[in-house]
Amino acid sequence: MKNQNVSQKSTWVQMPKNTDFTIYNLPFGVFKNKRLSPRAGIAIGEKIVDLSILQNEGFLSDCHLPEDIFVKDSLNDFIALGKNITRKVRERVQYLLEEDTADLKDHQSRGKAMVNFKDAEMLMPVKVGDYTDFYSSMEHATNVGTMFRDPENALLPNWKHLPVGYHGRASSIVPSGIPIHRPKGQYKDANMETPEFGPSRRLDFELELAFITGKSTKMGDNISTADAEDYIFGFVLFNDWSARDLQAWEYVPLGPFLGKNFASSISPWIVTLDALEPFRVANPKQDPEVLPYLQCEKDHGFDIQLEVYLSPEKGHENKLCSSNFKYMYWNIAQQLAHHTVNGCNINVGDMYASGTISGPTEDSYGSMLELSWKGTKPIKLSDGSERKFINDGDTVTMRGYCENGNIRVGFGQVSAKVLPAK
Amino acid sequence: MKNQNVSQKSTWVQMPKNTDFTIYNLPFGVFKNKRLSPRAGIAIGEKIVDLSILQNEGFLSDCHLPEDIFVKDSLNDFIALGKNITRKVRERVQYLLEEDTADLKDHQSRGKAMVNFKDAEMLMPVKVGDYTDFYSSMEHATNVGTMFRDPENALLPNWKHLPVGYHGRASSIVPSGIPIHRPKGQYKDANMETPEFGPSRRLDFELELAFITGKSTKMGDNISTADAEDYIFGFVLFNDWSARDLQAWEYVPLGPFLGKNFASSISPWIVTLDALEPFRVANPKQDPEVLPYLQCEKDHGFDIQLEVYLSPEKGHENKLCSSNFKYMYWNIAQQLAHHTVNGCNINVGDMYASGTISGPTEDSYGSMLELSWKGTKPIKLSDGSERKFINDGDTVTMRGYCENGNIRVGFGQVSAKVLPAK
Repeated sequence: MKNQNVSQKSTWVQMPKNTDFTIYNLPFGVFKNKRLSPRAGIAIGEKIVDLSILQNEGFLSDCHLPEDIFVKDSLNDFIALGKNITRKVRERVQYLLEEDTADLKDHQSRGKAMVNFKDAEMLMPVKVGDYTDFYSSMEHATNVGTMFRDPENALLPNWKHLPVGYHGRASSIVPSGIPIHRPKGQYKDANMETPEFGPSRRLDFELELAFITGKSTKMGDNISTADAEDYIFGFVLFNDWSARDLQAWEYVPLGPFLGKNFASSISPWIVTLDALEPFRVANPKQDPEVLPYLQCEKDHGFDIQLEVYLSPEKGHENKLCSSNFKYMYWNIAQQLAHHTVNGCNINVGDMYASGTISGPTEDSYGSMLELSWKGTKPIKLSDGSERKFINDGDTVTMRGYCENGNIRVGFGQVSAKVLPAK
Repeated sequence: MKNQNVSQKSTWVQMPKNTDFTIYNLPFGVFKNKRLSPRAGIAIGEKIVDLSILQNEGFLSDCHLPEDIFVKDSLNDFIALGKNITRKVRERVQYLLEEDTADLKDHQSRGKAMVNFKDAEMLMPVKVGDYTDFYSSMEHATNVGTMFRDPENALLPNWKHLPVGYHGRASSIVPSGIPIHRPKGQYKDANMETPEFGPSRRLDFELELAFITGKSTKMGDNISTADAEDYIFGFVLFNDWSARDLQAWEYVPLGPFLGKNFASSISPWIVTLDALEPFRVANPKQDPEVLPYLQCEKDHGFDIQLEVYLSPEKGHENKLCSSNFKYMYWNIAQQLAHHTVNGCNINVGDMYASGTISGPTEDSYGSMLELSWKGTKPIKLSDGSERKFINDGDTVTMRGYCENGNIRVGFGQVSAKVLPAK
């Protein structure tokens, strides 16, 4: 894959400067518009390739696809066909979009097959069966442990031995653009005698990346680190909205619940593992050595630049932080191997978020909790206002991209506005 | 509903003594056999009423059902029609099964409509979107807190202020009869320098009851305690299999993960809230007073007798404990109101388990952890062997039923054998 992706390519599609959706990327998503029912597409520049048109016009005939596989409200059935087929479709589309390929470029169906971004509404790309959230950034876990427990023993004893994770809420994962209501709930600050109820006063984002599985297992089976990537279809950006005050009061002893399950926002385009191949890097060395089932033969890290922006209701966008997926201590192969080592079965469309991705410097922290250090260091915005956490009316936007010489592969963005509590 | 259910009824169906599936019960399930594809049925005695036959023969014509609503591999679409319709179907079936009603009894389709239990395989009754596990028995939480933390402060500060809960794994919920492989994973006992890996040495059951929602909400909406039961379709028995050694090592700070997500077993028949109406009781008084959104106008407890049995590979059934759902400190209306107070959206088919149901006496504890008090008081079985936790080859069976004079409504059982680790 590596050489193929890295060899220079150009396309006949008009491309805006610095687009995330280059001919090297070609992520999958689900869209609809006034005219079209929900269906699968591939992004290129500012266009969506309507895969059902390509199929109907015979451009994908050698891919052996079931009829109407793309005219569905999720990619699950398509992804379940397996990587041999999904990879063939993506490579075929890449060929069709190349500068020197006339097949689609000069075909009478071209107009119908290429839908403008601005005419389409992006939907959830998959139906999520189960959603898991890991806690795999050492910098993030250390920051949280330092703030809430003991700076001398910030990491709990298990943290370096296993990728800590928990199950989250699948029903409230929504695509970019859907506004989020500030959650209400119980909180009990140190100065309160009894818990109080109201809108969260400490609404936060968490900068995460999530992978989506493309292959299922049976109960009792497990996946080795060597096989893990065969089960991973691709990635999306993931904003794990968090109500810090609700979470702090509720989370002992069974973990986060209402502090998290009111909403998570994702970017709508699934960037395939194939597209990320040129950006593969080693993860940090793990010390102490991990148990054999968590050891890896190859690198499973990816150099993905990540950024978070905040726009006040009537104000400009402010960059809050820059981080990178390569900082993760636990990699995706280890996460999936750990998740299934007890026989837990997985399904196509399941989602696995990384946990907050914080880097080593203060401007690389992936949450307001860390950036404002629990509210003790408010962040100044360009309009002169300050933020400790997220205000009503604020829009939080996350972006992610990889660059390697002339090749760029990006995620687009996940963006959502915070509305007042209902 | 109360009076109708309590008035004496008899049926023309041959009934075994002490059956759980009386004419007062009529729970819904999904079954198949060699001849029939998965479909919905209602249990009566040792028969399953094939609802698709009743529909095809016109017995349900006044229920305004979509075509083929019963010939599906889950009840989700049927349940989503709403209680007005599902209640009408159940009441119509009740009428058809009454001693003095000849319509079905004397109809030529009777043989086809009534399938023998022994000829049918029971499947998952619903497709579970999200699964939540609460921790709502004060006796259980107190026992666990006493064993693992501090007998003087066994309950954590939040416990009496909110129904503590967490998200569990939906993919590994299976119906009664499916064997469970002992999970493998990491554990670190107090005497170990570093964690070790292997089959769990402390496999346990948890005696729980789970409710299933029959109505969805939108993100941002919440459900009051007064409205909660409108959203609840019915209940199943729930065995929340637990690997205590894996759980103890992994659970800080984000809660249980591999210690739970390898399997949960449920009874296949959903007993409706309507059928449980005659057994409604008050829950224990709550002190301190709960926040307004958790206060209830009516009783939401149910007097449901619960029992757990263990059968060694080649041995007789041993009763391990007797408990009762009425002991719950937090009721189902409070659980659902709390779950949604932050705007978390729910779907039809979502499952909400109670947490281990322990009573006040030592023989009413709902887990081996409590019954053997962390392994310090082994339990003697009739074959002379002892158990601290569950051995390979053991079958764990849970039963539940309500009795009120001559009226009996039961859940049947959830039973599963433990196989060695793969």
